[in-house]
Amino acid sequence: MTEQELIEYLKKYLFLEKPIYAAYNEDCSVIKLKKEKYLLLTTDAMVEGIHFDLTFTDFKSLGYKLAACNLSDIAAMGGEPKWALLTLGAPKPPEKDWIDPFMKGLTTHLKKYKAFLVGGDTVKSPFFFFNLTLIGETGAPILRSGAKVGDYIFVSKPLGGCSAFLRKKKENREKISPSLQRAYLRPKPEILLGTALQKIAYAAIDISDGLVLDLYRLCQASGVSAEIDESLIPIAQGATLFDALFGGEDYALLFTVPENNLAKLQQISKKLKRSLYLIGRTKKGKEKVYLKRKEGRIEEIAPLGYDHFTSQPQL
Amino acid sequence: MTEQELIEYLKKYLFLEKPIYAAYNEDCSVIKLKKEKYLLLTTDAMVEGIHFDLTFTDFKSLGYKLAACNLSDIAAMGGEPKWALLTLGAPKPPEKDWIDPFMKGLTTHLKKYKAFLVGGDTVKSPFFFFNLTLIGETGAPILRSGAKVGDYIFVSKPLGGCSAFLRKKKENREKISPSLQRAYLRPKPEILLGTALQKIAYAAIDISDGLVLDLYRLCQASGVSAEIDESLIPIAQGATLFDALFGGEDYALLFTVPENNLAKLQQISKKLKRSLYLIGRTKKGKEKVYLKRKEGRIEEIAPLGYDHFTSQPQL
Repeated sequence: MTEQELIEYLKKYLFLEKPIYAAYNEDCSVIKLKKEKYLLLTTDAMVEGIHFDLTFTDFKSLGYKLAACNLSDIAAMGGEPKWALLTLGAPKPPEKDWIDPFMKGLTTHLKKYKAFLVGGDTVKSPFFFFNLTLIGETGAPILRSGAKVGDYIFVSKPLGGCSAFLRKKKENREKISPSLQRAYLRPKPEILLGTALQKIAYAAIDISDGLVLDLYRLCQASGVSAEIDESLIPIAQGATLFDALFGGEDYALLFTVPENNLAKLQQISKKLKRSLYLIGRTKKGKEKVYLKRKEGRIEEIAPLGYDHFTSQPQL
Repeated sequence: MTEQELIEYLKKYLFLEKPIYAAYNEDCSVIKLKKEKYLLLTTDAMVEGIHFDLTFTDFKSLGYKLAACNLSDIAAMGGEPKWALLTLGAPKPPEKDWIDPFMKGLTTHLKKYKAFLVGGDTVKSPFFFFNLTLIGETGAPILRSGAKVGDYIFVSKPLGGCSAFLRKKKENREKISPSLQRAYLRPKPEILLGTALQKIAYAAIDISDGLVLDLYRLCQASGVSAEIDESLIPIAQGATLFDALFGGEDYALLFTVPENNLAKLQQISKKLKRSLYLIGRTKKGKEKVYLKRKEGRIEEIAPLGYDHFTSQPQL
């Protein structure tokens, strides 16, 4: 079973009736509390040896990264993060030399986005693992399923930095640029942008498992296909096209905007003083992702990326 | 650092201001939404080799147990469980032979108490681990800190069954009674009792790490001591006094009731058609737990029980 098949398989165990507004195949579970008030729930785990390597990731960065991956899920739904619960699994009685930087990284990053740690669990474990549950709120959740044919597809920042960092680490490159290090160790979730996109973007997802795979998920939820343009994809400095298409942990937002809302999007870009990158458009058809190469050829790309149980993307 | 010292140490990273009603040293974090409406948040993890042994615990029971330990936290605060998020860490691509019984055990047990799974995360991990976050609601949270000197101390059921089960497993006893097996594999959280105790019990905690340790925690939060009577402690069939005092995973409620409310408590006992067990009274003094032995001697007992990082209770 791939991760996607597993998620599909587990659907039958999910409760999907009222007041659940959305739960399956979304970045958060969405519970409708009342008109224009929704609760967002997300949980993400990081496991030693799978999601991080302690030989080149310090505990402060781990705290940052754990906060970021959960914050990014709230951002993708246009939400504001509120309350967090931490589960801390450790192989030995905690010592201040790692628990302090970890907790500081985590709570500082949460606080920056007005989210706060309110509880948790501490357990012994043969290996380090961290699980964070984050609760947020929104007046108008942006789902993955809102894209229509002909919408414009955007990403919020240059992609592939994390993937490039990890590739260079694997190749034992001693010098890795500060910008790639920051991409991996200090990922920035798009909370501000996410809330600004409410009612302007009709579909959104955060890129945590790679552009192609996450775009495929958005297409699948919306019942459309997508064509993206190689020459438009913003690639992080030091990264390759392959990193940008298939690398995980970018925590950028991928979102679609109907033509009618493009002017409003431009205002947001101005107001937030940042670039947003048009990379293609949605089109008719069932859940296919196409890449228009620089020479003009259009290729279908298999929806591969970071999958916890199988992973061999090819270009 | 012991688990208790760790929890103490981590306090500085918790957000404890309004609208947080209680978060530190409680079974759940409590957020005040409005008058008589509180959100309860709890999270609990189970790790292979630490909390369970797959040689004698089937996956369906693991699902039950994961639901139970979280439901029990909600019960201890007089709450009704609502929404759950699951993190599932597994060493191999999930196969139906274990994922189905696990998910059935989990969701069936949640549903029995009107709680529902709405989302989660699946990750690869060197060992199995499961983390559940459960969100509940209550109109009047019962805190650990509400006990006054002279209150009556009750437990909700005979104790030590889980501990006896595990002891017998360790001793390789082939025949373990069905009641001890049920105590370990099908623990029942006290949701119904918990909600009935609102405004009648002034302090409560669930016994997950042993009667003595959890009673100590209640005393510590309330600023009182406690004296319990050996002859009054209900011991599960097949268990010993030691099991009942120090054994974990009972998921009974331990609660205190002022004299004024004893008649109301009797009505609850009648209405729910079940026994509640008076085991002693709170008394003046700082956070000490005393045991009155059958022969009349009164001993102070060290607050030991199931601690994830150190654990050697003695009697």
